Amino acid sequence: MRKQKVSSAVIRRLPRYYRHLNDLFQAGTVRISSNALGSSMGLTASQIRQDLSCFGEFGQQGYGYNVEKLRGEISDILGMNRSHTAVILGAGNLGRALIENFHFEKNGFQLTAAFDVHPDIVGSTIGGVTIRHTDTLEAYLAEHPTSVGVLTVPGRVANGLAERLVAAGVKGIWNFTNIELSLADGDNVIIEDVHFADSLLALSYMISDADDARE
Amino acid sequence: MRKQKVSSAVIRRLPRYYRHLNDLFQAGTVRISSNALGSSMGLTASQIRQDLSCFGEFGQQGYGYNVEKLRGEISDILGMNRSHTAVILGAGNLGRALIENFHFEKNGFQLTAAFDVHPDIVGSTIGGVTIRHTDTLEAYLAEHPTSVGVLTVPGRVANGLAERLVAAGVKGIWNFTNIELSLADGDNVIIEDVHFADSLLALSYMISDADDARE
Repeated sequence: MRKQKVSSAVIRRLPRYYRHLNDLFQAGTVRISSNALGSSMGLTASQIRQDLSCFGEFGQQGYGYNVEKLRGEISDILGMNRSHTAVILGAGNLGRALIENFHFEKNGFQLTAAFDVHPDIVGSTIGGVTIRHTDTLEAYLAEHPTSVGVLTVPGRVANGLAERLVAAGVKGIWNFTNIELSLADGDNVIIEDVHFADSLLALSYMISDADDARE
Repeated sequence: MRKQKVSSAVIRRLPRYYRHLNDLFQAGTVRISSNALGSSMGLTASQIRQDLSCFGEFGQQGYGYNVEKLRGEISDILGMNRSHTAVILGAGNLGRALIENFHFEKNGFQLTAAFDVHPDIVGSTIGGVTIRHTDTLEAYLAEHPTSVGVLTVPGRVANGLAERLVAAGVKGIWNFTNIELSLADGDNVIIEDVHFADSLLALSYMISDADDARE
C-alpha cells in the first residue's frame, strides 16, 4: 500500500478526506467526481489525484470515486482497522472531556484505561473507563500493550510521564500539554502535539492581518 | 510590516518561533544564530531566514538574532499586542479546561466571558469568569465587541452558534467541535479548527506506517 515516502502535508490531509467521505457516505452519496470532492474540500481535483496516487490507484476515469470504497481504503491507509489502543494520563477537565466526549472508537482506537494521582478520583469510573493510579502505569502497560498514551497532565509532569510511556513500549504519544517533549529514547515513539496556543496564535495572526487589510 | 501574501505553512510556523524564542528568553539566552535556532526547531537556517523575510529584515549578519527583540517582533506580527478578546461558548469539560488551564493572556487574549445553557452553572464563576446564559450572547457582544468566539459546545448546536457569533461581529471563531462550520456570511470571519480526530488519525497513520517499516 505504501509506495513512497508520504509528505507531512499529505498525511495531514488524509483525515480530512476520511471525514468528508464519511459525511458524504452518511448523506447517502454513492459516487463523487474528484472535481466535486475537491471543491467541497477547498482543493483542486488534480491535488486530490496526486495525494491519492501516493497510495495506489483509486477511482475510475469518467466515473469518479465510489464513496464507500474510497472511505474504506483511506480508513485502511490511516490504520483505523488495526485495533489500536489508548490510555489517558490525567483525568482533569481535559482528560475528562476526551474520555466522555471524544469518539475514540470511531477513529479506530479503543480507550482502555485512564490514570491520575488524585485520591478523589482514583478508583472511580468516568464514561465507562476506570481511573487507575499513575503508580500502576507500568504494571498495566506490561499486561496490556498499548498503542498510544494521551497526555492531558500538567506541563511540569509531562516529560517524565512521556519517558515512562516510551520505556513501557507505547508507539505514539498524543500530547495535549504545552510542553515540547524531549525524550532520550525519542526515536522509538511518534509524538503528535495538539498545541492549543499555536492554534490560537495562528488565529490571532489571521484576524490581525484581516484588520490591517480593512484599514 | 506585512509585505506579501504569507503562506499558510509560514503562518503555522510563526507560533512555534514565538514559543521557542520565549523558552530561550526565559532560559536567559541573549542571542542565537539562525543555525542554532533552526536545529532546535528542526528547520534549516535558510528556511528560518526565508520565513522571516516575509515580514522584513531581522537579525544581523555575523551576530544572529537578539532573542528578546525577535520574540517581540514575532509577537507583534502575531498580533499579540492588539488587546484581542475572547468569549467561550460551552462550559462543559472542554470549555472548563480552557477557562481554568489555558493561558489566554499569555497569548495576547483576554477571556472576558463564558456562556452556557445549563441552569446548574449559569451564574456561577469558573476561574474568575462568570458563566452567562447563551440567550444573552447578543446583548453581551453588542456591549463588549469581541475578537474571537471559542466553540466548545456539542456539535449539533455549533453551526447555529457560529452564525450568531458572526452576526454579532466577531472576527474569528476557534472551533473545537468536530463540525466543519458552514456559514452564509463566512467571508467575514476567520475559522480556526482544532479537530482532535484529524490529529489522532494522523498519529494513527504514523504509528501504522512505523509498524509496517519494522516488519
